Amino acid sequence: MHDAVEVIIAKRDRGVLSKSQIEWVIDAYTRGEVAEQQMSALAMAILLNGMTMSEIEQWTAAMIASGSRMDFSGLSRPTSDKHSTGGVGDKITLPLAPLVAACGVAVPQLSGRGLGHTGGTLDKLESIPGWRAALSNEEMLAQLESVGAVICAAGSGLAPADKKLYALRDVTGTVEAIPLIASSIMSKKIAEGTGSLVLDVKVGVGAFMKDLDRARELARTMVHLGTAAGVNTVALLTDMDTPLGLTAGNALEVQESVDVLEGGGPADVVELTVALAAEMLHGAGVEADPAAVLASGKAMDSWRDMIAAQGGDHTAQLPTARETHVVNAPTSGILTRLDAMAVGMAAWRLGAGRATPGASVQAGAGVQWHARPGDPVVAGQPLFTLHTDEPERFDRALESLEGGWDIGSQAPDLRPLVLDRIDFSGV
Amino acid sequence: MHDAVEVIIAKRDRGVLSKSQIEWVIDAYTRGEVAEQQMSALAMAILLNGMTMSEIEQWTAAMIASGSRMDFSGLSRPTSDKHSTGGVGDKITLPLAPLVAACGVAVPQLSGRGLGHTGGTLDKLESIPGWRAALSNEEMLAQLESVGAVICAAGSGLAPADKKLYALRDVTGTVEAIPLIASSIMSKKIAEGTGSLVLDVKVGVGAFMKDLDRARELARTMVHLGTAAGVNTVALLTDMDTPLGLTAGNALEVQESVDVLEGGGPADVVELTVALAAEMLHGAGVEADPAAVLASGKAMDSWRDMIAAQGGDHTAQLPTARETHVVNAPTSGILTRLDAMAVGMAAWRLGAGRATPGASVQAGAGVQWHARPGDPVVAGQPLFTLHTDEPERFDRALESLEGGWDIGSQAPDLRPLVLDRIDFSGV
Repeated sequence: MHDAVEVIIAKRDRGVLSKSQIEWVIDAYTRGEVAEQQMSALAMAILLNGMTMSEIEQWTAAMIASGSRMDFSGLSRPTSDKHSTGGVGDKITLPLAPLVAACGVAVPQLSGRGLGHTGGTLDKLESIPGWRAALSNEEMLAQLESVGAVICAAGSGLAPADKKLYALRDVTGTVEAIPLIASSIMSKKIAEGTGSLVLDVKVGVGAFMKDLDRARELARTMVHLGTAAGVNTVALLTDMDTPLGLTAGNALEVQESVDVLEGGGPADVVELTVALAAEMLHGAGVEADPAAVLASGKAMDSWRDMIAAQGGDHTAQLPTARETHVVNAPTSGILTRLDAMAVGMAAWRLGAGRATPGASVQAGAGVQWHARPGDPVVAGQPLFTLHTDEPERFDRALESLEGGWDIGSQAPDLRPLVLDRIDFSGV
Repeated sequence: MHDAVEVIIAKRDRGVLSKSQIEWVIDAYTRGEVAEQQMSALAMAILLNGMTMSEIEQWTAAMIASGSRMDFSGLSRPTSDKHSTGGVGDKITLPLAPLVAACGVAVPQLSGRGLGHTGGTLDKLESIPGWRAALSNEEMLAQLESVGAVICAAGSGLAPADKKLYALRDVTGTVEAIPLIASSIMSKKIAEGTGSLVLDVKVGVGAFMKDLDRARELARTMVHLGTAAGVNTVALLTDMDTPLGLTAGNALEVQESVDVLEGGGPADVVELTVALAAEMLHGAGVEADPAAVLASGKAMDSWRDMIAAQGGDHTAQLPTARETHVVNAPTSGILTRLDAMAVGMAAWRLGAGRATPGASVQAGAGVQWHARPGDPVVAGQPLFTLHTDEPERFDRALESLEGGWDIGSQAPDLRPLVLDRIDFSGV
C-alpha cells in the first residue's frame, strides 16, 4: 500500500514513480482518498521534475482504467479520429469528419467546448439550428454505422480521473507539463476506442505550444503513447502563428466549412483538411484520394447526413450578429503578418468564446479578416469585419487587434502550414 | 490585484515574487480566497525553485500580518526566548526557562506538542499533576512579571496563516523547504514579541536536518529574518546524532530536568542548558553566570514557582509506566554509537509520542539508556530500560532499537555537542 505523501516526495526528490505508486495515486484520487491539495503538489512536482516515458505510459493507463472504454470493433468499417491541440480559426474537424466518412472510414469525433481564445468544435456546430451535441453510446454507434461520422460531446464515463485532474491543473498553474498534457489527451482518445488517430499539434503565437521543439516533444510523447496502446498514431505539427482560414467565430466558421465542402473556401483550410484526411485514411488502412472525394461532393452529402442525424437543419440560415464594425487598411502594400493570438482574443472578446466553463457564447460573434499574410491590400479596403450582438464589446476587441498585423512593401517569408510529421519511426 | 494562478506560475517559472504578490497570496489564503490546492502547488514550486532572502522576509512579514502580535515592552525586565528545531531527549526548555528567569530575564516560551519521533515540551510538562498549558495573554504577562518564566501553548491569534500552511505542508510533501521552515518558525517568534531569541538548530540522524550545510543555511536564514525584524537573534547548531541526556519520554524527561536543576543530571544536558542560557542572557543584554546561578539553587526556585503558577504540583510523585523491559549489553566494551532516530522511534512506539495531531500520549512511557557513546559497558549490564503502560508495544519498540547502537573496543571519535554558532555577522 502507498500513501499520498510518499508518492509526492518520490517525485519531488526526482525519483521515478513505480507502476504500483502510479496506479494507486490515480485510483485513490478518483475515489477522493487522495485530496485535491495532494494531487496539486504532485502535479507541480511532475511539471518541474518531469516523468520518464514509461511513467507517462503507466499514468495514461491508470487514467484509462479509472473509467469505462468504448468499443467500435463491431462496426463494418475501420475507425479513425483526429485531435487538435487548439488554434484560432481551427474549424478543420467540420469538413474533415464528413470527408473521411465519405472515403469509407468511420470517424468517432468526441469534442469539447472552447475556453479562452480558441473556439470549441461543439460551440461552432451548436450555431446550426436544432443540432445537439449529446448522444448516447447507442446513438453514436448507430450514426457511425449509418452516416460514418459523429461529432459529439464526450460522456463522463471516459477517463474520469483526467476530468478531475484537468479542472485542478487549470486553477493551480500546472497545465503546461508535457507528461500531463500528453496523458490527458491520449487517455481520452485511447479509452474512446478509435483504431487510428491523427494529432494536429499547433505551433505558434496563437497556440498553446509557442515553440517548435516543445511541440515536437509533445507530439513524440503522444505518438508513443498511442502506438504503445495499439492505436495507429501519427502527428502533424502545423502553423498557428497565423489563424486558419478567414474567420474566427461559431456560425462564421460553420459557413467557411460549408464553403470548403462545396468546393470553395480558403486554400489553407482545404490544404490542412486534405492533409489530415490523407493521414486518417492511411492510418485506417483505406486507399482513397480525399481531394477527389471532396471535389466530387460526396463529403458534402456526408455533412448533410451527419448534421441531420443530430437534429440539425442544414438548410436553415445560420445566425448572424446584430452589429458589425469594419477596420480598413490604412495604407496600400502587402499584409506581412496576422497574429493568431490577437485575432483569437478579439473573437473571444466579441462573444464567440467564454471566460469560464459553462458560460454561453454568441453564435454570430467573431472576426473576419479580408486578407491573409502575403495578400496585397489597398488603402481604404476592409481589413477586418468584427461581429457581435453587443456593440460595447467592439472597443476591447479592437484593442486586441492593435499591433496584431503589419502591412509592408515586401512579400513576407512564410513558413509552410505543415511544419513536420511525426510517426512511430521518429519516436 | 493578483490572482493565484499568476503567483503560482511566477514561482513555477523561477521568478522572484513581488512584495505585493506575497502580501496578496498570504492574505487571500488566510481568508480562504486562495484554495488549499493552489497554496499546495505554490509550496511545491517554492520547495523546488527556492526563494531569495528578500522574498522570505516579505513572506514572513505577511504571515505575521495575518494575525495579532504580543507586546512585552511593558515588562520590568528584558525578554528572551529559545526555539529548538526538535530532537530526541530534548528537554532543555524545562531547566533553561527557570534558569534564565533566575538570572533576571523574562522567558515567554510558547511551545507545541510533539508529532512523530520527537517529543513536545507541553506533553512533557503535562505529566506533572495539575499543570496546565493554556494561559490567557493576561495570565502569561502576569506570570512573566511575577515568576519570570512561562512555558505555555501558543494562542491561535499568532500567525494564523502559518497554522493553516503548516497543516497543508504536512500532507503535501512540502515540509522540507528552508524558506517555508524558516518563515514558519520566525513568523511565530517575531509575532510573539520577544526581544531576543536563541535558535537551537539540531543536526544529525535524529533531527529534521541531517546535514550540517543545510542546517547552517536554515540557521542563517532564521538569524537574518530575526535580525531584520529587530529581534536580537543567534543560532547554535547542536548535535542530534546521539539523543540528549539519558531519557526520552514525558515524565522521564521531567525527572531528568529536575535532576539538572538540583545540581545533578547528565553532563550533556547541563552543558547545553548553560550554553543556551549564556546566549539568551547575552542577547537580552544581561550579565550573569548561568552555571553559578544553576549551582546556587535559584533556578530550582524559579522552576517551582513556574510550575505552581500554572497549577502544577511540583511535590507530587511523577507518573510511572506500568511495565518495563530491560535490554542488557551482550558483550563488554565501549558504547560507540547510539542512534537518536532509533531511540526516538522506540519512545514513540512505546506511547510517549503521537502519530496524529490530537491523539493522547502516555505520561510514563519512554526509553532510558544507561550508557552514552564513549561510556564503558559490561556484558549483562542493563543497556536500555523500556517503559510503557501497554506491554504489547515492546516488540515494535525493540525493533526500532535494533541496529541503533554499537559496542566496540575503541573509544569513538565523538563530535562536540555545539557544532557551530551563527550570529548576524555570519549572515
